[in-house]
Amino acid sequence: MTRTSWTMIRDTLATEISNRTLRPGDKLPTEPELAERFKAGRHSVRRAVEALAKSGKVSIEQGRGTFVEEAPLLTYSIGKRTRLRTNLLPQGCEVSGETLGSGVVKAAHGVANALEVANGTDVVESHRITLANGKPIAFGTSWYPADRFPDFAERREEIGSATETYKSYGIEDYLRRDTEMYARPAKPEEAKTLKQHPDLPVIVVRKVDTDTDGIPISHSKVIWASGRVKFTISGQDDG
Amino acid sequence: MTRTSWTMIRDTLATEISNRTLRPGDKLPTEPELAERFKAGRHSVRRAVEALAKSGKVSIEQGRGTFVEEAPLLTYSIGKRTRLRTNLLPQGCEVSGETLGSGVVKAAHGVANALEVANGTDVVESHRITLANGKPIAFGTSWYPADRFPDFAERREEIGSATETYKSYGIEDYLRRDTEMYARPAKPEEAKTLKQHPDLPVIVVRKVDTDTDGIPISHSKVIWASGRVKFTISGQDDG
Repeated sequence: MTRTSWTMIRDTLATEISNRTLRPGDKLPTEPELAERFKAGRHSVRRAVEALAKSGKVSIEQGRGTFVEEAPLLTYSIGKRTRLRTNLLPQGCEVSGETLGSGVVKAAHGVANALEVANGTDVVESHRITLANGKPIAFGTSWYPADRFPDFAERREEIGSATETYKSYGIEDYLRRDTEMYARPAKPEEAKTLKQHPDLPVIVVRKVDTDTDGIPISHSKVIWASGRVKFTISGQDDG
Repeated sequence: MTRTSWTMIRDTLATEISNRTLRPGDKLPTEPELAERFKAGRHSVRRAVEALAKSGKVSIEQGRGTFVEEAPLLTYSIGKRTRLRTNLLPQGCEVSGETLGSGVVKAAHGVANALEVANGTDVVESHRITLANGKPIAFGTSWYPADRFPDFAERREEIGSATETYKSYGIEDYLRRDTEMYARPAKPEEAKTLKQHPDLPVIVVRKVDTDTDGIPISHSKVIWASGRVKFTISGQDDG
């Protein structure tokens, strides 16, 4: 009897994932179990599972096993008013974040330019990671003018939401001004931080938010997990 | 004497590219020349050049040599009015495109949904590739309602610009409604079509354009070369 090819194994498992025979979060059978089921060699099974991991359908967690990914991709909508929680909560996502470090630094050229302050102006620099349903979706660095937001990082860590933190400074509304995005291969340490397959790219997003007078209140550069998030841009419906 | 490590070679060349000692379009010295210069083995040189190619700084052209890439990335701005030529011409880009094939097909679910027509409605399907300064930057498929634009592909091929083609149907203005984008590894044939290093990702962009009454006039799915293009989204300045 002919052995099942690895592409056949991959396609069968992919179909079972898309028709929900295998559901998000399910543990995939072990390699020996799959080899037995498909009458295939371990090598073919491994290759099929690797291909599924590469396309973001499953994630291999060292020592724990292989799990069906929370497909489809989360949708992050970019518009005039771009809010992390408003974006993800309706998709049934629990959003959490953590400040990895923060401090006051002198704005370098790029940051100063984005915030429209002089080079060397004091800015609060904050490194954060964001998780959706406990899985990392993005990490990066944000900068805030220190004269206006001297303790932004501490307040945000306490309050949780950026929108609510701005409110604590009397900013009831803010607007997304510029967003720049590009994709590139992930550096190994980025893949590790995002717990994403090393062959999946990252999306680098730089943006500036302003208050309603158009004065920049923050600039950030964030590395997104391409295997977990897609972006939508609303051109017309956006208030 | 210790031989120069490949990372040292990579970093030195990367610095010379960023400080313009090596300029966009320059041919890199050959492997033996680099090995001689760095007192390094051919293997280290090859690894360094491969790493530069992977990060998009150089491109290896089979049989011709290795060339410094036209960095920085082109900027494609997405807003209410998104126009290919208006986007790229101010960046000194000559834009050209080619229809790879076209025909009238029955709209499948996704296309019908995007164009707000019934499943199975006749739509013009057109496959195109877009080049900037002679290098592929994107390729993909667009769909147009066939009742309104029965010969869109032929007219566009003749006229060149999509904006001008719409004008030939009496559509003086049109608006970008929805844009969805995500990044993923390139399939080998996609990398080949885009003449991009196979390890660089692609950005998949789906969008709908409407006339000024909000009626969909086209839907498209386009695969962009992440090594050549970045996107900006304008939230406020956009008319």
